[in-house]
Amino acid sequence: LNIIIDGFGGDLAPKQVLLAARAASDSYDVDITVTGDSDRLADCAKVNAISLERIAFAFAETVIPMDGHPKSILKEYSQSSMAVGLKLLADGEGDAFVSGGSTGALLMGATFFVKRIRGVRRPAIASLIPTQSRVPYLLVDMGANHDCRAEMLAQFAVMGSVYSKAVLGIESPRVALVNIGTEEAKGDELRKQAYPLLSKTPDINFIGNIEPRSLPIGGCDVAVCDGFTGNVILKLSEGFGEFFSRTLRSMLTATPSSKLAGLLLKGQIGDLRLALDYKKHGGAPFLGIARPVIKAHGSSDAEAFKNAIRQAILCCNQDICRRIERQIAKRGGEEQI
Amino acid sequence: LNIIIDGFGGDLAPKQVLLAARAASDSYDVDITVTGDSDRLADCAKVNAISLERIAFAFAETVIPMDGHPKSILKEYSQSSMAVGLKLLADGEGDAFVSGGSTGALLMGATFFVKRIRGVRRPAIASLIPTQSRVPYLLVDMGANHDCRAEMLAQFAVMGSVYSKAVLGIESPRVALVNIGTEEAKGDELRKQAYPLLSKTPDINFIGNIEPRSLPIGGCDVAVCDGFTGNVILKLSEGFGEFFSRTLRSMLTATPSSKLAGLLLKGQIGDLRLALDYKKHGGAPFLGIARPVIKAHGSSDAEAFKNAIRQAILCCNQDICRRIERQIAKRGGEEQI
Repeated sequence: LNIIIDGFGGDLAPKQVLLAARAASDSYDVDITVTGDSDRLADCAKVNAISLERIAFAFAETVIPMDGHPKSILKEYSQSSMAVGLKLLADGEGDAFVSGGSTGALLMGATFFVKRIRGVRRPAIASLIPTQSRVPYLLVDMGANHDCRAEMLAQFAVMGSVYSKAVLGIESPRVALVNIGTEEAKGDELRKQAYPLLSKTPDINFIGNIEPRSLPIGGCDVAVCDGFTGNVILKLSEGFGEFFSRTLRSMLTATPSSKLAGLLLKGQIGDLRLALDYKKHGGAPFLGIARPVIKAHGSSDAEAFKNAIRQAILCCNQDICRRIERQIAKRGGEEQI
Repeated sequence: LNIIIDGFGGDLAPKQVLLAARAASDSYDVDITVTGDSDRLADCAKVNAISLERIAFAFAETVIPMDGHPKSILKEYSQSSMAVGLKLLADGEGDAFVSGGSTGALLMGATFFVKRIRGVRRPAIASLIPTQSRVPYLLVDMGANHDCRAEMLAQFAVMGSVYSKAVLGIESPRVALVNIGTEEAKGDELRKQAYPLLSKTPDINFIGNIEPRSLPIGGCDVAVCDGFTGNVILKLSEGFGEFFSRTLRSMLTATPSSKLAGLLLKGQIGDLRLALDYKKHGGAPFLGIARPVIKAHGSSDAEAFKNAIRQAILCCNQDICRRIERQIAKRGGEEQI
């Protein structure tokens, strides 16, 4: 396998990208292609004594800014490290692409250069959210499509279920529709239309509606919603994670005796940090793109990038795109809206 | 003042309602009318030695179930403790109504019996959500209207701002649109249409979009959204509150040394519990109904009901409904969609 990675995507690039490329190549026995300014990459490797065995560079002259307009990847940044990586992937010069750069640009570029899987209306971005049960759930769509039709939600359910089964190893993933009540008739127009569609979607284990209250306790494996709601859930979850750790910190430093308590709780707090750590789960897979594309978090360090590469390898080994294509084709034959 | 309260709304009624009525009448110097089966109310007061000074009963023969269909308040439950209370309020036999019963039925009944404030398109339910800064924010709409138009969101902003100022005592409440990005052009169609409307709404301190990540840290005083999104935020916030306290509990009971830590942290944990306690903030006010109606939490105890009564009194003293009417009228003259 040859995994392509954006050498300049993310706040800690290129050093943490190169460290991750080195570690991933050694651990997983794969080749890595790093995109970007080859001179700068070579310098960075040299300065940090990173061996480049099985690591190749693919030259790209620019870097798309984190806040750049998504469409700029097709225009002024069509030679950026992200665009070059996506084009290599589209041309079959690599098996998957990982980037810590702008989500919007990556989605635009992936859709334009790599294309959608046949039959997929809209690609979705999935995200793994930690839970109390320590098994994260897959939230799909977490922000690619703000205004959705019911049929799109049904496709998100199919793609999320395939991913959960193949890549996360969950045998029969519990797929739920995020809604404001558990009864079938609850919710807004979109949810009312999506429920019956999900009910009759073959090959998914649809368990009905899930209320957001049950998400943090691990009430489902795949949570299906439109991208606006998904992004609200993702960002509120992140906000509560920060709230939680800040509160804990201030609680454990308030007085001398609470500082002592902090020492006594060191092990438990370490466990909790690990459970809430987004980084170890890898990045956000783009579901519905013809080849595996993984969005790593913008603040990814070497460990997070390495986990995103591992996830990309799993997607390749499990042939995730063909599996999705088959399921979508199956469904397409039975249902047309 | 005479505050009407549903004697049989909520899991702990009627005992906790009567205890709250007693305490509120004593503390706030008001009359209380309790609706429901007078014999059962009198028995309950007697058994629990609750004095009925300044407390009157208004007979109602049935109780609407928590999961009853909202419309049933107009039909088979039109003589329920909730319906009777709302009709007394509509007839001017009391100044405000508090109920711990079904939210949907209360909204339907309030709209039908008490009516909307002139010019209000749709009443909204507001909810106070605790934050890290210990000052809760007002979330509006938290579930009354699942499918909204931009104009409705602008009215929610006006009503929420008036409530925050008059009842919560915030001088210039920071009103924000809940969105998935901070820039003006972000979001789905509804948010894109609502932003410019909110920008030119007079007499509100509109601070722009707020990302859900900033809600738990107190990034605004009034968070405006459609009722579907609001209910997702409310329920996810409650879910994280439970997650937080369960995690803390298991953390502090895991080992002998963590139990010791728990003892050392007793004070801090008490403070936190208080900050996260929904009960002390009272209930959820219905904004846009012609007289004050407060929905108390279904699991309210005497303290929570008493705080909801206190809130109802504040709404009366601040003449909240007339204030909303004036602001809506002002806006109606400047803007028609």
